[in-house]
Amino acid sequence: MTDRLVPNKLGVHAFVWAADWTRDDATRAIALTRETGYDLLEVSALDLGIIDVAHTRRELEQHGLSATISFGLDASCDISSTDPERIRAGERFLMDAVSVGRDMGATHLCGILYSAFQKYAVPPTADGVKNSVEVMRRVGEKAAESNIILGMEVVNRYETNMLNTAAQGVEYCRRVGLPNVRVHLDVYHMNIEESDPARAIRETGEYLGYFHTGENHRGYMGSGQLDYQRIFRALIENGYAGPITFESFSSRVVGQPLEGILGIWRNLWEDSRDLASHAYAFTTAQLASAAQSVRNAERSVLV
Amino acid sequence: MTDRLVPNKLGVHAFVWAADWTRDDATRAIALTRETGYDLLEVSALDLGIIDVAHTRRELEQHGLSATISFGLDASCDISSTDPERIRAGERFLMDAVSVGRDMGATHLCGILYSAFQKYAVPPTADGVKNSVEVMRRVGEKAAESNIILGMEVVNRYETNMLNTAAQGVEYCRRVGLPNVRVHLDVYHMNIEESDPARAIRETGEYLGYFHTGENHRGYMGSGQLDYQRIFRALIENGYAGPITFESFSSRVVGQPLEGILGIWRNLWEDSRDLASHAYAFTTAQLASAAQSVRNAERSVLV
Amino acid sequence: MTDRLVPNKLGVHAFVWAADWTRDDATRAIALTRETGYDLLEVSALDLGIIDVAHTRRELEQHGLSATISFGLDASCDISSTDPERIRAGERFLMDAVSVGRDMGATHLCGILYSAFQKYAVPPTADGVKNSVEVMRRVGEKAAESNIILGMEVVNRYETNMLNTAAQGVEYCRRVGLPNVRVHLDVYHMNIEESDPARAIRETGEYLGYFHTGENHRGYMGSGQLDYQRIFRALIENGYAGPITFESFSSRVVGQPLEGILGIWRNLWEDSRDLASHAYAFTTAQLASAAQSVRNAERSVLV
Amino acid sequence: MTDRLVPNKLGVHAFVWAADWTRDDATRAIALTRETGYDLLEVSALDLGIIDVAHTRRELEQHGLSATISFGLDASCDISSTDPERIRAGERFLMDAVSVGRDMGATHLCGILYSAFQKYAVPPTADGVKNSVEVMRRVGEKAAESNIILGMEVVNRYETNMLNTAAQGVEYCRRVGLPNVRVHLDVYHMNIEESDPARAIRETGEYLGYFHTGENHRGYMGSGQLDYQRIFRALIENGYAGPITFESFSSRVVGQPLEGILGIWRNLWEDSRDLASHAYAFTTAQLASAAQSVRNAERSVLV
Repeated sequence: MTDRLVPNKLGVHAFVWAADWTRDDATRAIALTRETGYDLLEVSALDLGIIDVAHTRRELEQHGLSATISFGLDASCDISSTDPERIRAGERFLMDAVSVGRDMGATHLCGILYSAFQKYAVPPTADGVKNSVEVMRRVGEKAAESNIILGMEVVNRYETNMLNTAAQGVEYCRRVGLPNVRVHLDVYHMNIEESDPARAIRETGEYLGYFHTGENHRGYMGSGQLDYQRIFRALIENGYAGPITFESFSSRVVGQPLEGILGIWRNLWEDSRDLASHAYAFTTAQLASAAQSVRNAERSVLV
Repeated sequence: MTDRLVPNKLGVHAFVWAADWTRDDATRAIALTRETGYDLLEVSALDLGIIDVAHTRRELEQHGLSATISFGLDASCDISSTDPERIRAGERFLMDAVSVGRDMGATHLCGILYSAFQKYAVPPTADGVKNSVEVMRRVGEKAAESNIILGMEVVNRYETNMLNTAAQGVEYCRRVGLPNVRVHLDVYHMNIEESDPARAIRETGEYLGYFHTGENHRGYMGSGQLDYQRIFRALIENGYAGPITFESFSSRVVGQPLEGILGIWRNLWEDSRDLASHAYAFTTAQLASAAQSVRNAERSVLV
Repeated sequence: MTDRLVPNKLGVHAFVWAADWTRDDATRAIALTRETGYDLLEVSALDLGIIDVAHTRRELEQHGLSATISFGLDASCDISSTDPERIRAGERFLMDAVSVGRDMGATHLCGILYSAFQKYAVPPTADGVKNSVEVMRRVGEKAAESNIILGMEVVNRYETNMLNTAAQGVEYCRRVGLPNVRVHLDVYHMNIEESDPARAIRETGEYLGYFHTGENHRGYMGSGQLDYQRIFRALIENGYAGPITFESFSSRVVGQPLEGILGIWRNLWEDSRDLASHAYAFTTAQLASAAQSVRNAERSVLV
Repeated sequence: MTDRLVPNKLGVHAFVWAADWTRDDATRAIALTRETGYDLLEVSALDLGIIDVAHTRRELEQHGLSATISFGLDASCDISSTDPERIRAGERFLMDAVSVGRDMGATHLCGILYSAFQKYAVPPTADGVKNSVEVMRRVGEKAAESNIILGMEVVNRYETNMLNTAAQGVEYCRRVGLPNVRVHLDVYHMNIEESDPARAIRETGEYLGYFHTGENHRGYMGSGQLDYQRIFRALIENGYAGPITFESFSSRVVGQPLEGILGIWRNLWEDSRDLASHAYAFTTAQLASAAQSVRNAERSVLV
């Protein structure tokens, strides 16, 4: 097959395998990530303290996998607030996360790093955004020492009041002004917020640092409404070479408090391995089609 | 133009015109609804008590408009809970709403009538669903006396934990078992939850009682990602003859607490009249195209 | 992977491998068809006489492959004409083709069997259609003796003046009135002629007997404009269990006179094996997504 | 309504009104073009000699309409051949057409000006393309004297063997090297030949000089498969300010020889005026949506 004509590492989100991250969870998730063909595992935890960093690193290395860490700040750590205590707590949390990432050998930290992961009741303030940008600059400088890219995940209106569109993400990164603080786009969120996901990808341009696939309802890839033909072509036209990570949630795996936080009320799949294998096959086939689509133009010569 | 080949009344949501419903708001909203071509106004209020029913009815009649009332229950009135007090409060609220609808001359009551309009932290329970169905049967019987249709709005995971898909809406209505308790579908929510909105419309079939248009980001119609070609064809193939009501929110009109409840963080339009006029023109043009599409098959004869 | 959740045999068209059908071509094409994962080979030849039937059958059996034969009538054999001589010549050709199919072990004969494969200058006549139907009834009866299904390929306006839409195909088959004379739909042609390919598939219903995939420009699968999400879902919703055969033409393989007949002016691919392998992976991934999409509705329960 | 936020003149093709061009046809077509809201009429004739130039010009001026002339060369005038006589005949025809355009007050000449409008049996040759380019340079220079833009219509494989894709059209115009020899794109043909019409429009860039709308089956606008959301956004993103002309053919209006040349075997509409009015309303509504879509990005600010 025209497999992997593209440079991107393909990843899978840990919640496909397990909601928790015990040593057993880590061992199993890492083995399954490799078995199903992926290059990268995105470790996601509400509490970074639950990660046994040395164990996870060892398992990742043994299986030849890259890793990302993802999370969202909670309200007590909201660096987009105007409360100095929360801002300080948020900076500490982020600095600790960079240390965890460095020790685990992660190449990316991503998620809602710039504000709290929650449904806000009021709009963001200019001061709050400024506070967030200033903290992120310091965190980004520390991350740069370990060659870690920070991905500012642009999410829907129910998960933040601040970065809902790629354009806002780009503007935030411009204000931070560091090459390793980039935009993290996610198809699920783009489906709710963007006027045109393909245009959003093109207009993010070189600021794009991380990419999440999935579905509009967070189930089986290709079983919903997302237009992957356009999405993957836009990534290739944009020259994006970073990770493409598949994320899917089912009430079958996530329990409390995650199902409440994420709003996962349906059992959209039972079999993690089948889900992940299929997403891998779907992604490689579609990426190959997208790469050929761009090549067709080159084949369109005039004698 | 092939205008209005279809039987549906075209409506517009009151929040396009005003966030509140003072007598002046009502007078202005009703006049603008007529001016921009619509047949129906959807009056939406967090607090039904703010509606001057006699005034609104008089203005509606003078302009020859139909009306719908829409709302969502709040937590203290949650008929899908297992708390008898909340359930009783919810039933009283719904019965009052039917009276308001009757007195205002409304043909439909719709929205999140079956549970609370909020982000839940836990999944629905079988007892809660049962409680909701029983209350709705009594409310539906009262509504039937005034020829009012109740539309159970299927909304996204952040606004209820109970009816997120058309299939769930149909099952709920089946359990209620009344011809005037029907499914209310909304393109914004379907875009987040359905695997295939056109199939969802077809599978809702005769249960479909009310329909909301809009956009994935709740801005200008046709400026986002929604595939109206498929959506309107599915409505026509389904034989749907009920209202089609346009809903759009901008921070320009909605203030607190609505912007927080709805998560409206962007100013997607400034000019209500332009927004509504365009949505009307867009809808009639697309409906005509959809009707012609179905006719093309009939024109596909073999000599 | 969720591979092959569906009952359909997956096929590939011989012109992917070779324009001619010498014994060496046959040997090579059959081996490559098996190697790239397919269950079925569609043998296509302007002149059926070039097929060494015994050799082809032996090779097919050795590789465990099913087979289809496809062709279009030429003007001298046009059974939709009003010239008795052409009609008789066409009937002889079709009867011979059924014999070849029987001897080769083919399960389907398909293509433009009902009229000439050419750009007409005038519309079809009622007499011509009647002549075609009568001949096809006799040919169909003979084919039934060998359990061969005849697929009436619905093609674009430049290749016939008679069956350009699925609705016309269904009407034609109704007039013939035999269970083994069915409609053969092709995505390339539907893209030019149908108002809505998914609706066309659904409305063809049980008359659907054969299905061609490909692309709007006849190149790499998924590299063009076709909406396979909708197409495959429609096949599954329609309960279609017959062959799904991939067809693609490049000036790299087809020479004269085929490039002139088919209008193949571009070199859209160089590597037949890569093309076919990719189409197989693309098809299985998309079919699995489509099957899951239909299952999502079943998973959408109400507690 | 947000009508005509865009600078483009909206046109309609004469075959919507009449297949012929008698003085009565011209008078009627011009009046109907104005009545249905358009700014421009595309006069199309197999034989330019049938146009009463003075009469047409007078009627156009009285109704305040712009005009385009469109045609395809016939085989005896094929400037992409290697037969000096045909090339000379073609150049004479094109020079005459420029004169007719100048005298009629046309702003554009477009169509298959660069080769014959026919199904070829063999691919184009390098010498043929060179001959075509050389003639077009001389014709373009004459057209420039009257401020006439020449649009090289990129058409499908059944209508030329030479310019089937926008990329080929751009390359042809580059070789001609004149600012008034540009690419003419048509949605009907792009649907057959392009890998991605939106990308094709963007990559044509400033070479785009004329644009045809319609449908995949050439019937009612919006009743087929074309994705106008993407097409109109691409035109706006490309900054295209030239004419957008609607083209549709039904066997109801075109007779012989046109129905044979164009392959019009179905009666897709009966009422020219309804067809044209609807296409105008559809186009303005969609263009307004597309313009708003681009503006949404500007509204996506970060406080």
